[in-house]
Amino acid sequence: MPSFEVRIPGVTRSYRVAVERGLIDRAGPEIQALSPGPVAVVTDENVARLHLGRLRASLPEPPRVEVVLPPGERTKSLERAAEVVDSLVDAGLDRGTVLVALGGGVVGDLAGFAASLYLRGIRWVMVPTTLLAQVDSSVGGKVGVNLPRGKNLLGAFHQPSLVLADPAALETLPDRELAAGMAEVVKTALIGSRLLFERLQAEIGRLLSPGGAAGAAEVVLECCQIKARVVEADERESGLRRILNFGHTLGHAIEAATGFSAFRHGEAVALGMRAALVLSRDRGGLPPGDFVRALELVHRIPVPDFPIPRDRDLLAEMIRRDKKVEAGTVQAVVLEGIGRAKTVQVPVEAIVEGMLSL
Amino acid sequence: MPSFEVRIPGVTRSYRVAVERGLIDRAGPEIQALSPGPVAVVTDENVARLHLGRLRASLPEPPRVEVVLPPGERTKSLERAAEVVDSLVDAGLDRGTVLVALGGGVVGDLAGFAASLYLRGIRWVMVPTTLLAQVDSSVGGKVGVNLPRGKNLLGAFHQPSLVLADPAALETLPDRELAAGMAEVVKTALIGSRLLFERLQAEIGRLLSPGGAAGAAEVVLECCQIKARVVEADERESGLRRILNFGHTLGHAIEAATGFSAFRHGEAVALGMRAALVLSRDRGGLPPGDFVRALELVHRIPVPDFPIPRDRDLLAEMIRRDKKVEAGTVQAVVLEGIGRAKTVQVPVEAIVEGMLSL
Repeated sequence: MPSFEVRIPGVTRSYRVAVERGLIDRAGPEIQALSPGPVAVVTDENVARLHLGRLRASLPEPPRVEVVLPPGERTKSLERAAEVVDSLVDAGLDRGTVLVALGGGVVGDLAGFAASLYLRGIRWVMVPTTLLAQVDSSVGGKVGVNLPRGKNLLGAFHQPSLVLADPAALETLPDRELAAGMAEVVKTALIGSRLLFERLQAEIGRLLSPGGAAGAAEVVLECCQIKARVVEADERESGLRRILNFGHTLGHAIEAATGFSAFRHGEAVALGMRAALVLSRDRGGLPPGDFVRALELVHRIPVPDFPIPRDRDLLAEMIRRDKKVEAGTVQAVVLEGIGRAKTVQVPVEAIVEGMLSL
Repeated sequence: MPSFEVRIPGVTRSYRVAVERGLIDRAGPEIQALSPGPVAVVTDENVARLHLGRLRASLPEPPRVEVVLPPGERTKSLERAAEVVDSLVDAGLDRGTVLVALGGGVVGDLAGFAASLYLRGIRWVMVPTTLLAQVDSSVGGKVGVNLPRGKNLLGAFHQPSLVLADPAALETLPDRELAAGMAEVVKTALIGSRLLFERLQAEIGRLLSPGGAAGAAEVVLECCQIKARVVEADERESGLRRILNFGHTLGHAIEAATGFSAFRHGEAVALGMRAALVLSRDRGGLPPGDFVRALELVHRIPVPDFPIPRDRDLLAEMIRRDKKVEAGTVQAVVLEGIGRAKTVQVPVEAIVEGMLSL
């Protein structure tokens, strides 16, 4: 099956990312091949209804633990992580356990976080069922939970031992969920591959149409590979990995300023990328032609028409609170061309200007 | 000052362990040399009363955050870790922050855990003020918290960036605290150094007398170096590092069977070592002469005379629940000689027999 290996320096095991239609039905043998140990599954109610039975049927025996959580960002909490760990303790599961995260980014972040902490780290497998998780959060090992004071304030780097992405799962995704994932696909092209960018120019309409993303195996695999190359070079985000945040500093500020309720993360990133493209043209040397082409593609990602906050002080405060702010200035990711990103240090005010240009 | 570097493969920075009388009064410049960033301190009420003022006075400006926690094992909770992180968020501290843990093992484990999770990892400095923390928990990077279901169920590997041990702090330690730490000192000699063992034979009485441990700088440094050699070879406890658990599987079972209230951790380890020496003689090839010498030294560590549970089923259940049990048998650490440890796979029942021989 189409797959590749992610090799991170200092991480003992490399891990495989496989993308193929119907992979959930064949997940069991892949998981068992990792370890003869017990299997535990973490998922949410929506995903359980659609896919848990298929995953279960693919295993030689039922999972020793199944944790089915309420869907949604609120589930990504310390309390829920402790609940997952409690279930593992109660079942007496040891270090040989493989924890399978079946679901989107929330399930992956939470389950991976629990796996990173239980007995100081057990193996975990990501089976991403959303486009966003397939192209973004399943590769790279960033796991964590939110605190009441902010998103992703607690976290760790804990690489999965295997990623099994089944594009057929995308057929059942709601439109908004698909669009949110497409924002990360476009971002990946903008920072990493002109070829992928051109393919998206031709195919984004079809990919966003009902059932269209289910045929996106090649695009998903390409996105995972681009992300893996970045993460391999810089797991801990001390340099290169920051380019993955293209559009995100602004996206987070928009999410925060709207109380994390109006926009989905991907939608906020789509808005953030519009502003980041302006910043790229003004401060990154992005040629005007590329600016127009990139902006045109970003605008084809549907974003709901909620009002974006336009209060300068509020926006500046939201950016300052973001964890990527150091010593008052922001390291912003900009494009110098389509498929080529870099970081530049800019004052918070410049970011605010970019956002007010939306 | 007497110090050495710990170099762990795959961990970017090596870190220095320094042991010297009066080091708390000179901690500030050492901490500032690590990073120009803000300093936050986590400590407990007892330690704050004795040492926080000295640490504060050694810094060019007061810490941006001071978290003073109630003393005791109950503080090592997920809720307290979140409290520490909340304090860092509220003060707006960024990735350049250095978190200083001033105290014993509980403070170190908790503060190191918070440091490992905040923004996916910030630097931390351990300033251990108990003998146990100076010789054991301050080197090696094991951090974590307890859950209601068990001790250290949530944890991570997050090496400190600096360890500053001040033996003068040991002058104010209660007797039981000192004895508990001495158990780890003796353990370290048993698994790693015949020379240290012989020194302890000659000096353990003085070291355990009032104020005696405050002159123990050389012994503390030697213990840290022995532990560092083990951790450098095996940070993640996939092999060699397990020898550090000599006496611990049994010690944990004793702690658990007595509800974690009768014995201190170190005392339970002292009891566990007695049983582990029996196991070493019977299954590890420890020569009878060494067995007697080692047992004699272990018996010089004062342990309160609480009844030890003698229910076979209860003990077996406690051992099975221990996280070091895999697939029904226990990988027990035994000595093949004084200063030389190895692991052998033994049935749970053999461990129970060892404990009943106490």
